[in-house]
Amino acid sequence: MNKPLRIGIAGLGTVGLGVVKLLQAQSTLLEKRCDRDVILTAVSAKDSSKNRGVDLSSVKWYENPVCLAEDIGIDVVCELIGGDGNPAKAIVTSALNSNKHVVTANKALIALHGRELAGLAELNGLALNYEAAIAGGIPIVKALREGLAGNQISRIYGILNGTCNYILSVMRESGRDFEEVLREAQEHGYAETDPAFDIDGIDSAHKLSVLTSLAFGSHINFADIYVDGIRNISALDIIFAEELGYRIKLLAIARPTENGIEQRVHSCMVPLDAQIAHVDGVFNAVVAEGDFVDKTVFIGRGAGEGPTASAVMSDIIDIARGITLPTFSVAAPKLTDAPSAPMDQHNGPYYIRLSVLDQPGVIADVSAVLRDESISIESLLQRARAPGEVVPVVMVTHETEEACLMRAMKKIANLASVQEKPKIIRMEPLD
Amino acid sequence: MNKPLRIGIAGLGTVGLGVVKLLQAQSTLLEKRCDRDVILTAVSAKDSSKNRGVDLSSVKWYENPVCLAEDIGIDVVCELIGGDGNPAKAIVTSALNSNKHVVTANKALIALHGRELAGLAELNGLALNYEAAIAGGIPIVKALREGLAGNQISRIYGILNGTCNYILSVMRESGRDFEEVLREAQEHGYAETDPAFDIDGIDSAHKLSVLTSLAFGSHINFADIYVDGIRNISALDIIFAEELGYRIKLLAIARPTENGIEQRVHSCMVPLDAQIAHVDGVFNAVVAEGDFVDKTVFIGRGAGEGPTASAVMSDIIDIARGITLPTFSVAAPKLTDAPSAPMDQHNGPYYIRLSVLDQPGVIADVSAVLRDESISIESLLQRARAPGEVVPVVMVTHETEEACLMRAMKKIANLASVQEKPKIIRMEPLD
Repeated sequence: MNKPLRIGIAGLGTVGLGVVKLLQAQSTLLEKRCDRDVILTAVSAKDSSKNRGVDLSSVKWYENPVCLAEDIGIDVVCELIGGDGNPAKAIVTSALNSNKHVVTANKALIALHGRELAGLAELNGLALNYEAAIAGGIPIVKALREGLAGNQISRIYGILNGTCNYILSVMRESGRDFEEVLREAQEHGYAETDPAFDIDGIDSAHKLSVLTSLAFGSHINFADIYVDGIRNISALDIIFAEELGYRIKLLAIARPTENGIEQRVHSCMVPLDAQIAHVDGVFNAVVAEGDFVDKTVFIGRGAGEGPTASAVMSDIIDIARGITLPTFSVAAPKLTDAPSAPMDQHNGPYYIRLSVLDQPGVIADVSAVLRDESISIESLLQRARAPGEVVPVVMVTHETEEACLMRAMKKIANLASVQEKPKIIRMEPLD
Repeated sequence: MNKPLRIGIAGLGTVGLGVVKLLQAQSTLLEKRCDRDVILTAVSAKDSSKNRGVDLSSVKWYENPVCLAEDIGIDVVCELIGGDGNPAKAIVTSALNSNKHVVTANKALIALHGRELAGLAELNGLALNYEAAIAGGIPIVKALREGLAGNQISRIYGILNGTCNYILSVMRESGRDFEEVLREAQEHGYAETDPAFDIDGIDSAHKLSVLTSLAFGSHINFADIYVDGIRNISALDIIFAEELGYRIKLLAIARPTENGIEQRVHSCMVPLDAQIAHVDGVFNAVVAEGDFVDKTVFIGRGAGEGPTASAVMSDIIDIARGITLPTFSVAAPKLTDAPSAPMDQHNGPYYIRLSVLDQPGVIADVSAVLRDESISIESLLQRARAPGEVVPVVMVTHETEEACLMRAMKKIANLASVQEKPKIIRMEPLD
């Protein structure tokens, strides 16, 4: 029988408590699957007197999580506090410097300091695992680092933020507008009081930066991600999307292009016949396209106590079984500093919605602007006729360069008959 | 730099050639991801003079694959010949006895001899990996063995045979009947000349037996699987299924019950709002339900040169990185001999289609039989009215025991107004 693996948990919020419950519930199972006991030795949280509904009487308590990270009686430190600054960063650094493996659910930390921390972990021959940081219970880090490792990945994309996906799903089902659904989501606890981090796409971008590094063997590069959220999505756009055979999702997408690696987070029209179009509510999904495997789709719960604990535990189980891989699949010194593709060189089809006065000559004016920027129209919808009034006109373009599209939108906004700033939504071809 | 990992490939059919191509195409990538070279050293196939479109001039050629398995210049033997007998079994046994790791895509071999071979591999501290044996390019073995290993699995199910899924998809899209679509699939090479292995569910059952062992920590038990295929599915049933909000899929399902582990392969009605209902054509899907992770869905190509090679390569990469786990996740001596749940104790809802004479009293007679077996009806469809002629009557039951259902069907078949043997299709509740 191998020596027990001793776990220290810093942070007893939703995730930390979930891991405590899992360790207690599955001790027999873990012993069988790891061929050794996996035991909780110490925890750190602010208030030791608070009743958290779990028995912690036999574990050591640390007020200071950095002291937990240095405890010589611990083999693995789980950093489950979150945030890209201290104490999270100090905990992980101290643990790695104290010869302990680290498991974290902290996407911001990995996105912003992953390069430095990976170097430290690998220098000391330690694991720095973070399965729970991306797409909750879906074992996507393992899939990219190991399961699909024989492939050149040509594109990776996904629904990585449950809050946004929930809001977009409810908007579609109820026909209500963004502000109202957001307010309701906040009341139900599905969205934070300050929702910017989720709905403006930052959380998705943190996660995407990690997927990009894993998929393309490049150093993590959060700074260069194009990030936009879902605030601009209206009930009207959702209706038009359905009519055109699409659904609107907040997607995080990365792919290598001629101009470098493209990384972007934005609301996106995806075809209704794509699996990902049917991933609703708080579920997450990741699609990886590889040169040998073709398309693989992974769907599961993106957050919550149980799914996150499941992911943290898979990282611990790897360590218990003696598996220590490079943080980003390839040893840190071999990761590349690939250039980033500028967003204005992005190529793709676009959905455009204009609010125009219903009068002769409007479509001719708009078409002329598009022609001058070499943008060709795949389809055009103008439903209601209301002479002299403002009506929506919806167009879908063929593939075009973002810079051209943006120049055309500026010119169109200045046309006399156009009453509002044109609305655009990028479309992602998925076969 | 670590020593190169030397690969020997037995079998140069679709899978073997795919692996050769992958090794040649991705040598730089593999060196980075494995921190060592992965090189093809030897192959074995019948005809060395045949042009296979790949350069094999620098590798050793074996006419006898068992000799390849014993070559001291090889670290990993890939058994890609297939079949549960020799030479496949002899190759794997010889390789393990010669201190070589084994990678195979052979589901029949693992299903029928996995217990014995796992014991041999673990005794010698060697890997016996088989990711390619189940669901092609989907890394589901790794997901169960590692990614979801912190969970008690409560049910695992999937679409594991691309031929059946292709036939059912075409039947639905075209409205044509089974025999015609099968014949066409054979002409296009999507189905074998002798299709029994696929369409009678045996291939799916081989794969299910492995998933069951991985999910529940039990010894592999192919013999006790209830196996039925798709021959009995008619175009009419597909139409009724859609009308009721379901789609017909060949599912392989395993779950622990009060009576033991239930393992079954049969055509099945799944609700249209389930992800798996929309997995069409040659795609495969696996859904794993765990106590912490909840539901996770994995979708990808179930067969073909590229996807299978991707899976074989992930097994090789694990070995290159020094990862050697027990064959069925838990060390062979700790696997349990769990009892099998008898199929007649299966509980679930059923779809029943009767061909009856359209005359008064028929429904009353049928209802009385069902009442006597304590079977309650959730819905009943009788569309066409054609007094005195034969019309279909479709019923969906609430959850009931298979034994009661079968007794009732026997009695109903004997009613004077019932013109054909009643058709039943099991329904699988999926939330």
